[in-house]
Amino acid sequence: MKIKRSERLVDMTRYLLERPHRLISLTYFAKRYESAKSSISEDLSIIKKTFEDRGTGIVETLPGAAGGVKYIPTIKKENAREIIEEMCEIMNSKDRLLPGGYVYLSDMLGNPELLQKIGRVIAAQYVDKKVDAVMTVATKGVPIAQAVATYLNVPFVIVRRDSKITEGSTVSINYVSGSSDRVEKMELSKRSLARGSKVLIVDDFLKGGGTINGMRSMIAEFESETVGVTVFAEAGYNSKREVFDYTSLIRVNNIDLKDHSISVGLGNYFDEGTELA
Amino acid sequence: MKIKRSERLVDMTRYLLERPHRLISLTYFAKRYESAKSSISEDLSIIKKTFEDRGTGIVETLPGAAGGVKYIPTIKKENAREIIEEMCEIMNSKDRLLPGGYVYLSDMLGNPELLQKIGRVIAAQYVDKKVDAVMTVATKGVPIAQAVATYLNVPFVIVRRDSKITEGSTVSINYVSGSSDRVEKMELSKRSLARGSKVLIVDDFLKGGGTINGMRSMIAEFESETVGVTVFAEAGYNSKREVFDYTSLIRVNNIDLKDHSISVGLGNYFDEGTELA
Repeated sequence: MKIKRSERLVDMTRYLLERPHRLISLTYFAKRYESAKSSISEDLSIIKKTFEDRGTGIVETLPGAAGGVKYIPTIKKENAREIIEEMCEIMNSKDRLLPGGYVYLSDMLGNPELLQKIGRVIAAQYVDKKVDAVMTVATKGVPIAQAVATYLNVPFVIVRRDSKITEGSTVSINYVSGSSDRVEKMELSKRSLARGSKVLIVDDFLKGGGTINGMRSMIAEFESETVGVTVFAEAGYNSKREVFDYTSLIRVNNIDLKDHSISVGLGNYFDEGTELA
Repeated sequence: MKIKRSERLVDMTRYLLERPHRLISLTYFAKRYESAKSSISEDLSIIKKTFEDRGTGIVETLPGAAGGVKYIPTIKKENAREIIEEMCEIMNSKDRLLPGGYVYLSDMLGNPELLQKIGRVIAAQYVDKKVDAVMTVATKGVPIAQAVATYLNVPFVIVRRDSKITEGSTVSINYVSGSSDRVEKMELSKRSLARGSKVLIVDDFLKGGGTINGMRSMIAEFESETVGVTVFAEAGYNSKREVFDYTSLIRVNNIDLKDHSISVGLGNYFDEGTELA
C-alpha cells in the first residue's frame, strides 16, 4: 500500500530527527514509503522549509548517486540566548551555594529536557568542525557530553580520575589542578579514541582550567586534535585561569559566601562579536 | 499567516517527540499554528496513526478542559528483540574480554544512537509505572540512566561511591558488594530525590547484585519506592546473586578466560512469558 504524503511527512520528520548529521539516500525513503523519488523530494522541501522557519535546523540535500539528505540541528542565536537566560534564572538562587565557592548543579544536569537544550546550543557551535568525538571528565561532565554527542551524532569518551577495571588498558597523564596547584592524574581507555580524531571538549564547570588543560594533553597524547572547548558554566570571579580558547554558556560573576549571594549571567558565547559557527 | 497542514504535521511531530509524557493542550497548538482546534485534532489523528503503524509510540488524547495530547514512546517487542540481537552481535567479540570476567562496553555506552535504542527499550517497560526518577550509580550507568530518563521525561539521579564537594550534603549508606563480600559505601545528594518518589533503577552490568541492593536501600532511606530494576547486561554465569526482581536486555552466558571466548545472548526480558508493560 502506498503511503500518503501526510504520513510520510510525520515518519520522515521523526526518522531525520533521530539521525542528525547522517546522510540518508532518497532511495532509502522511496523504498520505505513505496513512493517515487520525486514525491520524496517534495516532502523533503516541506520539511526543510518548516525546520528553517521554526529554527529546528538545516535539511541539506546532496545531489548525485552518492547523495541524499542530512539533518543538521542548529539553533538561532536569539533562541539560544533565551534558553540560557532561563537557565541563569534557575541558577540565580542562593540555595545553590556550596562551601568553597561551588554551585549545586546536579538537579539541572539530571533534567533531560534541560540537557537537550544545552546539548543543542553547544552542538550548534561546532556543526562545521567535523567533530569525531566529544570528550569530558567523569562524572559531572558526562550528561552534557552525551547531550552534545547526541546532536552531533558522534561518540563521547569519558576521561577518569581513577582507573576502572572495566576500561581495559588506559593511557594516563598528569596535570596541574588550576585551582589547587596540585598534580593530579587522569586516565583514558586506550581503545576509546582513534589516533587523528578531532575532539570537542565539554565540561560542566570551569574554574582554574586545570582539568581542561589535562584533557588537551590527553588528546595530544592520542595524536588527536582539540577542535574546541565549551563549558556549561564558568566562574567569572576566578582570575587564576590558564589560557586556552573556550566558550561558556553561563558565567557565575560573583559568589559571596558571607552575604550568601550568587550572581549569574550569560557566558562569553553571548558576548558581542561571537558568531555562531 | 495561517500555517499549512503539511508544515503543522512536521513541526507538531518534532514538538511531541521532544516532549515525551508531557500533556500539551490543543489550545497551545491552535495558537502556535493559528489554526482551528478541529484542524489540530485532525493533524493529531494522522500523527497518532503514523506513530502506531511505525511503532514509534502512542499519541494519547485526553478530552476536557484540562485535556490535551501526550506522546508516549513505546517499542514493539519484536523490534526491541531485533535491536538487542544486533547489540549481542556487537558484544560477541573476544576482544571485549577484560581480566576478572569483565566485558569492555565503553564504546557501546558512548554511542548516542545505540544509547537511544537502549533507552527506548528500557523506558517502554515502565510507561505505566508513573516513574518519578531514574537512579543509577556513577559512572558507567549514567549514559543509560540519561537515555531512559529522556524517554520517560523524568530526572535521573546519580549515586556515587565517593563524596563530591559539588553535591552538598549527602545521605550515605553501606552495602555489601555481592561479588567481593566487602562492605562499601555509597552516597546520594540529599536534595536530589524527593521523599515518596517512585524510582526506576538502571545500571550497565549486573554481577553480584550488591550495587543494586545498595541503591534499593538508598531509595528506602529516602522513603521512596523502587518500581523496577533493569540492567543493560547481566552475567549469567554468576550464580552468587542476591535476589530481587529485575529485567536484563543482554545476558553474558559464558566467559572463558582460558579459551579467551565470550558467549552473549538475549537477557531475561525476552524470556517467554515476559510481557511489555
